[in-house]
Amino acid sequence: MLLHDFKSVVEKYKIIFFDAFGVIKSYEGLVPGIEKTFDYLKQQNKEYYIVTNDASRSPKELAATYHRLGLDAITHDLIISSGMLAKEYLDLKVNDGIVAYLGTQSSAHYIDSSGLHTLPISAINQHNIDEVNALVLLDDEGFNWFDDINRAVNILRKRTIPAIVANTDNTYPLRGNNDVSIAIGGIATMIESIVGKRFIRFGKPDSQMFMFAFDLLRERRPVSKKDILMVGDTLHTDIMGGNKFGLDTVLVLSGNTLPDDADTRIRATGIMPTYICNTAVIH
Amino acid sequence: MLLHDFKSVVEKYKIIFFDAFGVIKSYEGLVPGIEKTFDYLKQQNKEYYIVTNDASRSPKELAATYHRLGLDAITHDLIISSGMLAKEYLDLKVNDGIVAYLGTQSSAHYIDSSGLHTLPISAINQHNIDEVNALVLLDDEGFNWFDDINRAVNILRKRTIPAIVANTDNTYPLRGNNDVSIAIGGIATMIESIVGKRFIRFGKPDSQMFMFAFDLLRERRPVSKKDILMVGDTLHTDIMGGNKFGLDTVLVLSGNTLPDDADTRIRATGIMPTYICNTAVIH
Amino acid sequence: MLLHDFKSVVEKYKIIFFDAFGVIKSYEGLVPGIEKTFDYLKQQNKEYYIVTNDASRSPKELAATYHRLGLDAITHDLIISSGMLAKEYLDLKVNDGIVAYLGTQSSAHYIDSSGLHTLPISAINQHNIDEVNALVLLDDEGFNWFDDINRAVNILRKRTIPAIVANTDNTYPLRGNNDVSIAIGGIATMIESIVGKRFIRFGKPDSQMFMFAFDLLRERRPVSKKDILMVGDTLHTDIMGGNKFGLDTVLVLSGNTLPDDADTRIRATGIMPTYICNTAVIH
Amino acid sequence: MLLHDFKSVVEKYKIIFFDAFGVIKSYEGLVPGIEKTFDYLKQQNKEYYIVTNDASRSPKELAATYHRLGLDAITHDLIISSGMLAKEYLDLKVNDGIVAYLGTQSSAHYIDSSGLHTLPISAINQHNIDEVNALVLLDDEGFNWFDDINRAVNILRKRTIPAIVANTDNTYPLRGNNDVSIAIGGIATMIESIVGKRFIRFGKPDSQMFMFAFDLLRERRPVSKKDILMVGDTLHTDIMGGNKFGLDTVLVLSGNTLPDDADTRIRATGIMPTYICNTAVIH
Repeated sequence: MLLHDFKSVVEKYKIIFFDAFGVIKSYEGLVPGIEKTFDYLKQQNKEYYIVTNDASRSPKELAATYHRLGLDAITHDLIISSGMLAKEYLDLKVNDGIVAYLGTQSSAHYIDSSGLHTLPISAINQHNIDEVNALVLLDDEGFNWFDDINRAVNILRKRTIPAIVANTDNTYPLRGNNDVSIAIGGIATMIESIVGKRFIRFGKPDSQMFMFAFDLLRERRPVSKKDILMVGDTLHTDIMGGNKFGLDTVLVLSGNTLPDDADTRIRATGIMPTYICNTAVIH
Repeated sequence: MLLHDFKSVVEKYKIIFFDAFGVIKSYEGLVPGIEKTFDYLKQQNKEYYIVTNDASRSPKELAATYHRLGLDAITHDLIISSGMLAKEYLDLKVNDGIVAYLGTQSSAHYIDSSGLHTLPISAINQHNIDEVNALVLLDDEGFNWFDDINRAVNILRKRTIPAIVANTDNTYPLRGNNDVSIAIGGIATMIESIVGKRFIRFGKPDSQMFMFAFDLLRERRPVSKKDILMVGDTLHTDIMGGNKFGLDTVLVLSGNTLPDDADTRIRATGIMPTYICNTAVIH
Repeated sequence: MLLHDFKSVVEKYKIIFFDAFGVIKSYEGLVPGIEKTFDYLKQQNKEYYIVTNDASRSPKELAATYHRLGLDAITHDLIISSGMLAKEYLDLKVNDGIVAYLGTQSSAHYIDSSGLHTLPISAINQHNIDEVNALVLLDDEGFNWFDDINRAVNILRKRTIPAIVANTDNTYPLRGNNDVSIAIGGIATMIESIVGKRFIRFGKPDSQMFMFAFDLLRERRPVSKKDILMVGDTLHTDIMGGNKFGLDTVLVLSGNTLPDDADTRIRATGIMPTYICNTAVIH
Repeated sequence: MLLHDFKSVVEKYKIIFFDAFGVIKSYEGLVPGIEKTFDYLKQQNKEYYIVTNDASRSPKELAATYHRLGLDAITHDLIISSGMLAKEYLDLKVNDGIVAYLGTQSSAHYIDSSGLHTLPISAINQHNIDEVNALVLLDDEGFNWFDDINRAVNILRKRTIPAIVANTDNTYPLRGNNDVSIAIGGIATMIESIVGKRFIRFGKPDSQMFMFAFDLLRERRPVSKKDILMVGDTLHTDIMGGNKFGLDTVLVLSGNTLPDDADTRIRATGIMPTYICNTAVIH
């Protein structure tokens, strides 16, 4: 396995897309030294975006968490989240009625849209079920699993409505030990297989995530995909998605993919990053 | 769709295997008139067994529920449940340590085995996790889904142990409306896909269910599979399993498969019963 | 099922995306009268594009087949094919070496790219296998299935390279009876599951197809997704993909989805078109 | 990884089930020294059976290949093949008409049954398709893949009949290099997913394979599963199946599972053999 120096890789590109978790931050806070990377990017006049499968909060709230940690370089307009795609879908495709959701109140707050009535799935009953025009799966917290996952199954058996999954991840790491927690993407897969319907999934590796960032860039000036580098710690989301969209990719070994496993996993999955670097920190 | 008279079908066989739910009983109690079927079988000296994907209680407790409903013909020695196979597995293959389970206390009581310590998954912690030698998924009730499904995922990530699923069904019907509830088989599929390991599943359509009943018969005298008829209401468990084991099969339309859907579902799945009857009731 | 008049639907949009097979043409040739639809669109100054999962030929060759049938309205610059995405991927991501392919010579001709050496998989042997840097699955014809599918499996076991599928369809209809033929997408799924690697798939319902057309539009002027209508005959490609990209969609009943099945399939899959029309022909 | 001595493991059991390929033989012929194992078993009065996913020939023909290699200890009555289960299914469940097959003529010869007309799938046409009452997938050789796999798909679209897979393996190793060949089980999975029907699969890890051998034993005298040891080289067939049937199992490292990979694969799949031995040869 050939390891590259992150700085010498970044030098070749004009625009850098970063995954958030495992690249910039972890459950302990910021990846130590990562602010130097953004100092360097600004100094070199390189553009950057955060492309994240996170539908639990709005870009503004996500940016605020970076600022509280002392990283002011990440402003809300530089964050592309899978929640933004779920919101765009609802804006474009669901005109009225109730949007039922699985997730926290703050995740639902973000998808609120004019004309739509956003309700937790626990508030759906025989009187309002006929007004439900979409089901959105946002977060694994904020509801009673037994009651509300069963409720989701039965709503989808009775109503022919789109089911939108705003985070494709199956699990996420827990703070402080090696445990994981099942993410809403894993719950979505179970509900989907039980009701036998096709859900609409937003989030890496899906191209729509990358397109959203790409569109923001092009609104200002012409951009070639050759100028963009995607940096991530997960092969089947960050690297798979970046590759498919036509971007060069860097796998960093500071998160999901451990240095000892990287080679084996690349060979097993066939998902090949353009480069492998220990970290996205530029010293 | 050619409908047969159940009595004239039964006349051709010496031994009848019955599925329980949707054939003999429903959430409203016994299927009205079903006791006459068993009167007829006894009078004709035909043998019968109940072959059921039910790991929530022991055969004795299952038999008692029939007796309370007034059907004394079904005694515990005539009941083959998927829970019995899970118990046989533990008896044969797990010699010591803790068996952690997801399910009710009464479902776990049945699998208690000498030398093993049966504990709900909520009782597993960092002090006893290394003694856990099997995980058994018994029932969808009796535990906190959020806490304990996540716990199951993390135990299986840390321990290389067999995970046994004692009921392969994905859902079961709820009383009083058309709702369903996710069964432990559906939860098992989610956990299995998240941890990426192979679970051991007992229950129809797996042949081991039919073999268990077949073995009981042969202990007394030689039996040919040609003499046995399997009666069920579900194509992909009762009929698929009976067919594969080499039995003739009857699909009854009193449960899972509605009269209007039977033809379409048979064509869609390719699972063909030998006969179709409205009901297993013999008038 | 509420049927809409296609003309009154089209009136509400500025830009129309059409699927090809089952909407504009069939194995018998053009859908009778479809030229009037394009006359109408031109007269009304509405733009249109053909968005097709067809990697067997270049857009120029595809356009030529319409011209030979007497439909001059479809020029090559209006055709977006999944083959174009495969070509873009190779242009952006594979810099040198051999691109091995499964398909006809004419399908491979289109993906030829400067610096790359395109070879049928039958020409890969122990001397050149180490130079193979990508495998592209283009068409189900033009090769010996036994020899070359097995060869593809073994190349992917030995080389960690991207495998690109330029057509996601599992089957396509055959001329003259109700038979189908397995498409390269179906073969790709078998190879993928046998080698256990992740393939890169281009074609509807993937958003990249729609994005490609959307980008062409925006190069000339600002466009809103609200102004675009996607017309297709297949729920899980045309309608699923159009919906997910945020477009309004029309299911036409002139191809894959029969009038008698439409309602059942929409309910079974949960994929809902905005409108249903008998045909895309405007009289 | 704790390695056991095969002889000291075998001493604890009365009956030994052996997988064939990777345990007793390879493409180079017999595993060197394996005859000593059978000498030892005979001398110790231990019974043994060969339990193999091989539907390409009859037990008599399989036994003859051992005799030609100089191993007379394996007689046809000691061989349990997945082809025998396919044959039993046809004997019990298909009474008349045509059985169409994919495979060699010699694989089909074995399933010939009185009253049935066995025909290669290439001989099925519009005149006799309505008489086809079963499709059996026997072997990956003996037919034209393009023509006959497509024919199988279309027969199953038109006829609601059972499709029987007599070998569940996806691939098998090729002689003389590290290449593999797609087995009929891999082809079956593709056809099954394309037509959307449920196939009937025989072969390890399915319990019916083990039951067949167990029944032969019990015809002569009472047997406990505790007295039987299953020896195999493949985790997800031999070891998974043996475990589930309640047998103790040995993984040998002379075939499919390499010494360096055993630990990783056991942890990744959760399939745990009771013992691990380098080889089944007893010196």
